[in-house]
Amino acid sequence: MATIKTKRERVKFASDNVAGACPEVLDALMKANEGDSAPYGNDDYSKVLQEKFSEIFEKEVIVYPTASGTAANALALSTMTPVFGNIYCHKLAHINTDECGAPEFYTGGAKLIPLTGINGKITPEELEKNISGTGIVHHTQPSSVSITQVCETGEVYELDEIKKIADVAHKHKLNIHMDGARFANALVALNCTPAEMTWKSGIDVLSFGATKNGCIAAEAIIFFKPELVGNISFLMKRAGHLLSKMRFVSAQLDAYISNDVWLKNAKQANEMGKKLSDGLVKHSSIKLAYPTQANEVFAKFPREMIEHLNSLGYKMNEDELDGQAVRLVAAWNTQNSDVESFLESINQSK
Amino acid sequence: MATIKTKRERVKFASDNVAGACPEVLDALMKANEGDSAPYGNDDYSKVLQEKFSEIFEKEVIVYPTASGTAANALALSTMTPVFGNIYCHKLAHINTDECGAPEFYTGGAKLIPLTGINGKITPEELEKNISGTGIVHHTQPSSVSITQVCETGEVYELDEIKKIADVAHKHKLNIHMDGARFANALVALNCTPAEMTWKSGIDVLSFGATKNGCIAAEAIIFFKPELVGNISFLMKRAGHLLSKMRFVSAQLDAYISNDVWLKNAKQANEMGKKLSDGLVKHSSIKLAYPTQANEVFAKFPREMIEHLNSLGYKMNEDELDGQAVRLVAAWNTQNSDVESFLESINQSK
Amino acid sequence: MATIKTKRERVKFASDNVAGACPEVLDALMKANEGDSAPYGNDDYSKVLQEKFSEIFEKEVIVYPTASGTAANALALSTMTPVFGNIYCHKLAHINTDECGAPEFYTGGAKLIPLTGINGKITPEELEKNISGTGIVHHTQPSSVSITQVCETGEVYELDEIKKIADVAHKHKLNIHMDGARFANALVALNCTPAEMTWKSGIDVLSFGATKNGCIAAEAIIFFKPELVGNISFLMKRAGHLLSKMRFVSAQLDAYISNDVWLKNAKQANEMGKKLSDGLVKHSSIKLAYPTQANEVFAKFPREMIEHLNSLGYKMNEDELDGQAVRLVAAWNTQNSDVESFLESINQSK
Amino acid sequence: MATIKTKRERVKFASDNVAGACPEVLDALMKANEGDSAPYGNDDYSKVLQEKFSEIFEKEVIVYPTASGTAANALALSTMTPVFGNIYCHKLAHINTDECGAPEFYTGGAKLIPLTGINGKITPEELEKNISGTGIVHHTQPSSVSITQVCETGEVYELDEIKKIADVAHKHKLNIHMDGARFANALVALNCTPAEMTWKSGIDVLSFGATKNGCIAAEAIIFFKPELVGNISFLMKRAGHLLSKMRFVSAQLDAYISNDVWLKNAKQANEMGKKLSDGLVKHSSIKLAYPTQANEVFAKFPREMIEHLNSLGYKMNEDELDGQAVRLVAAWNTQNSDVESFLESINQSK
Repeated sequence: MATIKTKRERVKFASDNVAGACPEVLDALMKANEGDSAPYGNDDYSKVLQEKFSEIFEKEVIVYPTASGTAANALALSTMTPVFGNIYCHKLAHINTDECGAPEFYTGGAKLIPLTGINGKITPEELEKNISGTGIVHHTQPSSVSITQVCETGEVYELDEIKKIADVAHKHKLNIHMDGARFANALVALNCTPAEMTWKSGIDVLSFGATKNGCIAAEAIIFFKPELVGNISFLMKRAGHLLSKMRFVSAQLDAYISNDVWLKNAKQANEMGKKLSDGLVKHSSIKLAYPTQANEVFAKFPREMIEHLNSLGYKMNEDELDGQAVRLVAAWNTQNSDVESFLESINQSK
Repeated sequence: MATIKTKRERVKFASDNVAGACPEVLDALMKANEGDSAPYGNDDYSKVLQEKFSEIFEKEVIVYPTASGTAANALALSTMTPVFGNIYCHKLAHINTDECGAPEFYTGGAKLIPLTGINGKITPEELEKNISGTGIVHHTQPSSVSITQVCETGEVYELDEIKKIADVAHKHKLNIHMDGARFANALVALNCTPAEMTWKSGIDVLSFGATKNGCIAAEAIIFFKPELVGNISFLMKRAGHLLSKMRFVSAQLDAYISNDVWLKNAKQANEMGKKLSDGLVKHSSIKLAYPTQANEVFAKFPREMIEHLNSLGYKMNEDELDGQAVRLVAAWNTQNSDVESFLESINQSK
Repeated sequence: MATIKTKRERVKFASDNVAGACPEVLDALMKANEGDSAPYGNDDYSKVLQEKFSEIFEKEVIVYPTASGTAANALALSTMTPVFGNIYCHKLAHINTDECGAPEFYTGGAKLIPLTGINGKITPEELEKNISGTGIVHHTQPSSVSITQVCETGEVYELDEIKKIADVAHKHKLNIHMDGARFANALVALNCTPAEMTWKSGIDVLSFGATKNGCIAAEAIIFFKPELVGNISFLMKRAGHLLSKMRFVSAQLDAYISNDVWLKNAKQANEMGKKLSDGLVKHSSIKLAYPTQANEVFAKFPREMIEHLNSLGYKMNEDELDGQAVRLVAAWNTQNSDVESFLESINQSK
Repeated sequence: MATIKTKRERVKFASDNVAGACPEVLDALMKANEGDSAPYGNDDYSKVLQEKFSEIFEKEVIVYPTASGTAANALALSTMTPVFGNIYCHKLAHINTDECGAPEFYTGGAKLIPLTGINGKITPEELEKNISGTGIVHHTQPSSVSITQVCETGEVYELDEIKKIADVAHKHKLNIHMDGARFANALVALNCTPAEMTWKSGIDVLSFGATKNGCIAAEAIIFFKPELVGNISFLMKRAGHLLSKMRFVSAQLDAYISNDVWLKNAKQANEMGKKLSDGLVKHSSIKLAYPTQANEVFAKFPREMIEHLNSLGYKMNEDELDGQAVRLVAAWNTQNSDVESFLESINQSK
C-alpha cells in the first residue's frame, strides 16, 4: 500500500487534474446524497444553480452543468456553429489538439481554423485576416471563435485583448466562446470580476471549468445570450451528457462557487505556480518557455535533468506544445512543501 | 428545509434513479479522493477494474467505465454498427425511445429497427423475419441487435430466450448487445451467474449499469470479444466521455462489485418491487400491466386514484409505455415502510 | 451486339429507370453543350428555372436542381429536421427502405418513424397518434412528415388525403415533404394542377422527380415556403451535389417541363400501366396486390409463371414490398407492343 | 440571342468547367440512350469500365463512377479515414478550401491538417513533421494524405515528389489519395503513364477527373488496393451518388478514355495554357505567380488591367489563392483565337 501511495504523489505537477476534490466539494457531495431527488436536473441543487451563477456573473445567465470539459466545449460550439461552419481558434487550443475531434463530432463536421497567434493567444488582426468567404457556397462559413482562458501556454488574456477579439468576431457576426477550463485561475490572475472577464468583454458562451480546481467532475456551459441556447438540452441528452443523478454534479458546482471556495483554490494554485516558476528561473540551465501568469509553468530543461526527475518518479512530459517545453501545473492542493521538494530534486540533479 | 426534504421523499417510486448512492460506494469515493492520481483512467482504481470484472464474468473481459448509461449504450452500439447499419431492438427499448437519438448520433446515422415483440421482449422469430437485404446496396444493412435486461416492461429475459435471440443474430453475422441498466436486478431475479446471463448465452457486448442500483454515476461497457472493441477509446474521448478524474468513476464500480454490494442492493430493490406488486394486486381496481419480475411494477390505476396519489406528492407518470400503464420502481434504498406508506395512501384513496 | 440488345430489352418493366431520355430532353442537352457557360448553376438555364417552375406551380417557388432523387429527398428533409428529429413516413417509403440511410446521413442522425398505413399510404389518424413527446428532452422530437406520390404500392394519394395529413402535420408544427419521384404520373392520374397536388394541399417541400419520366439525371427540390430553404445551398455543396456543369441538369429540367413533355410522357406510362394491369387481371391465376392507379402494377403470380418469364429474360423481382408482390413498371417509352409481348409471354407460360 | 452568346464566351478562362463536353463524349451519350438498360451501374457500360481502367492503369483496379468531383474526393477519403482521423493536405487544397466541408461530412468529422508546403505542393519533410500523436487517445489520429495533381497553383508534382510523399505516408501506415481533377493535364505535362503517376509512385486511391476535360459530369474513384474499397458502395448510395441511370456517367467515361480522347483534350488545354502564359509574360507589368506547368496560369495583373478586362466581360477573379493572383484556365475547347483575343484585349488596356 505504501508503494502505491508513493507512486501517486509523483504525478504531482503533471497536471491539475491529478488532484482530488477539495473538502467543501466533497462535503456537498455527501450532503446531496441524503434522500431521494428528481432526476435529470430537476433536483433542487440544479434549479438553484441558475440563480447562483446569475448572481456571480451579474446578469441572468443560462447554465447547463456537465461532468466533462470536452463535452462542455463541444456542446457550446455546436450551438454556435453550423455543420459547414468555421471555428477559429489557436492552433494549440485544447479543442484543436486534445479533444480527439470532439468539436467536429458535436457540430457534425465543422472545421477548426488553427491560428498561429503570439505564443498561446490569438490576435484580432490574424482573426480578421482569416475571416473570409462568407456567403460563398464553396467555402466553409465563418461562424464562431473560441479562446482559452488560461490559454494553452499558461498565459492569460488581458480584458482588452478579449474585447478586441470579440469585436472582430461580432463585426463579422460570429459568436465567441471561452474555454474556461482554468477560469478561476485566470480570474485570480487578472483580479477582475467574472462579468468583466466574460460578457462585459464580449464573450457569448463560456465553458466554466471546475473539475481541475477542486471538483470531481463538474463543468458548466454558461450562456450570456439566451438566443444562443438553441436546442442544447436535446443535444446534451442525445450525447449522453444529461446524467440521471445530475444533482451530484450540481451540488459540486454549488459548493465550488459558494463562499469563494473556487477563488481560494485558484489563488493557492497560482501562488504555487509562481513559487515554482520563481524557483526554476534561478537555475541558469532552465529557461521559461512562456511567462508564468497563472498556475501553469512551461520551461525548457536540460535533458539529463529531465531524466533525473523522471527517475525519481516525476512525469516530465516533453511532448507538450510540439515538444517545445515541459509543462508543470500547480493545483488547489499543491503545498509549499511540494514545490520545495521538487526544486530540491532539481538541485540534486546537478 | 423540512419542506424540501418532504418534497424529495415523494419522488420515491418514480424511478430508481431518484435514489442516491449506497454507503459502500460513497465511502469508496471518499477514499479515492486521497492523494493525487494519474488522470484519464491511468489510475490504480481503473487499472484493477479489468481484473475484477474478468473474475466476476469468469472470462477475460475488456472494460470501459463511463458516467452515463446512454453513453455506454451508444458507444457500445457504435463499435458494432456501421453508419448504414440496422440495429434491431424492441420498439419500447430505451435506446429507441428515451435517449433522444443517441445511437443515431454515435453511429453516425444507423437505423433502429423497432420490433413489436411480446410485451417488452423481442422474439427470435420476429428478429429473423426482419433481417433482410444483406449485401443489397439500397438497403441499410443488418448489423446488430440490442436487448434490454431488465426489459422496458419490467420483465426479465430467461437465459434460453437470450440464447435463441443471440443464435439468430450470430447466424446472420450480427453482434448482440445487452443494455443492462438494471443488470443486477435481472441477475438476482434469474438467480444465475453474470457469465450465464451474458457471454454464455451469446451476448457480445454489455452496458453494465450501476448508477440506478447504488452508484452516483457509474456504468461500464464490457466487451466479451476483443475484436469488437475497435476504436472505442478514441470514440469515447471525442464524445467527452473520458473523464479526466476517471478514478472516481472506477472507484464507484470497484466498491459496487466488491463484497456483493450490487447483489445485496438489487435483492432489496427486487423484494420491495415484489412487495409493492403484491400489495397492488389486492386492489380489484388495479391491474398489473406486466408481470413483476424484478424491481419495476407496471400497473393500471383508476384515474381518481392517480389524482389522489399525485395530490399527495407522488409522481404517477401515465406517459410510460404509450400511456398503457403507470410505472413504479423500487430502488436499493426502498424500505418496507416506503412501500407500506404508498399502499396506505392507496387505501385512503378509496 | 444483337445479344446485348436482346438482353437490354428484357429489363423492360423492371422499373421506369431502365428507360433512357426522351428526344426533347436529349435535344436540350445537345443544345446546352454549345459554347461556354458559367458553372455551379450560374448559367442561363439554371437561372430561368426559378421562373418556369414558379409559373407551373402558380406561386413563387425556390428551386434547387440535383442529379439524384435520393439526394433531393435527403437534402429536403435535412432542411426540415434537426439532428434529434422524427421524420414520419410509411414503413415502405423509399426514404425508409431504399436509400441506404440517406435521410439519416443528411440530417445528422434523425429518426424515421415508420407508419403502417393502409396499403402504401399513411393515414392522418395514425400520424396523429404517433406524434408525441414534443418538448421532452428524452425523446427524439416530432419534426417532419414525408409522403410519396405515387406511393410505394403504386397508389396515388387523393388531394383530400394529402390535405388531411398536412393538416395534422401543421397542427403540430411539423413540415411536410412530398417525395415526387413519380410526380408527373400522379398528376396525370389525378388530373389536377401541380399547385393543387402540392402547396394548395399543404405540401411545404417537394422532391420533383424527372429522371424516371424521361430525363437522364434530373430532379429538383422545390420549396413552397422560403423560410424552409435554410442553408440548403451549403448543404448541397458539401454533399457534392452542386455539379460544376449544372447547366446540363437544368437544361434537362427545362425541356422536361416545357411543352407538356412531362405530362405527355407520364400519360403514356400510365396508359401502358393500365393496359398491362388490365391484361394481367384477365388471368385467374394472377391477382393484383394493389389497385393500379398510375404506371406501376403490383401483382402476385404463380411461381411457375415467374420462372417462365425469367427464363425469357425478364426480371421478375419478388423481393419487392416484403415479398408480397412482383412490381411491373411502365415507362414513358413503353409501347403497346411491349405490353402485348409481355402478356403474350404469360399466355405461353400456361 | 446574340447577346447571350457573347456573354457566354466571356467566361472563357474563368475555369475549365465552363466548357461543355467534347464531341466524342456527347456521341457516346446519344448512343447510350438507345434501348433500356439495367439501373444503378448494372448496365453494360458500367461493367466494362473495370476492365478498361485496369488496362489503362496496367493493374486490376476497382472503379466507382460518380457525377461529382467533390463527391469522389470525399467518398475516397471516407474509406481511408476514421471519424477521428487526420487528413494531411496542402492548405490551398480543393478539399480544404472549396468543398464546403465535404470531407468532414463524409468522414463523419475527420480533421484536415493544412500544410504550408512550397507554393502549391506539400513536402515530405513537412508531412513527416506533422504526423504525431499516433495511439494517444486525446489526439485525432494520423490517417491519410491527399495531394492534388495538377495542384492548386497550377504546378505538377514530379513522380519523384509523389514517391517521397507516399513513402512518408506509408511509413506511418497512412493511406494516400490523389485528387486528380486535372489528372489528364498532369499526365500530359509529365509525359508519363497513368500507372507511373499513381500506384507505381505509391498512390493508393485516385479521384480520376473527367468533367473538366471534356465530359458533362463524370469522375471515377479508382482503388489500387482492394482492401481500401471498404463499404464504399453503401456510402455512395446513402449519399445519393449512385445514380439510377448510371449508364450515362459510365458511357461518358468510356468515350473519354477511349481512343486517347482524354489525352488529346488535355494536350490542347495545356498547349493553350502555355501559349497564354507565354503571351502574358511578355508584358512587363504582368508577373506569373507560379510556373505554368499544365493548363492553369496564375498571374498578378495591374489593377487597371483587371478592370479593363472585366469591362470587356471577362471574369478576372482576384479572390483565388488568398488574393495572391488571378487564375486563368485553358480548357479542351480553348482555341488559338481565344488566347489571341484575350492577349489582344490586354494590349488594348495599356
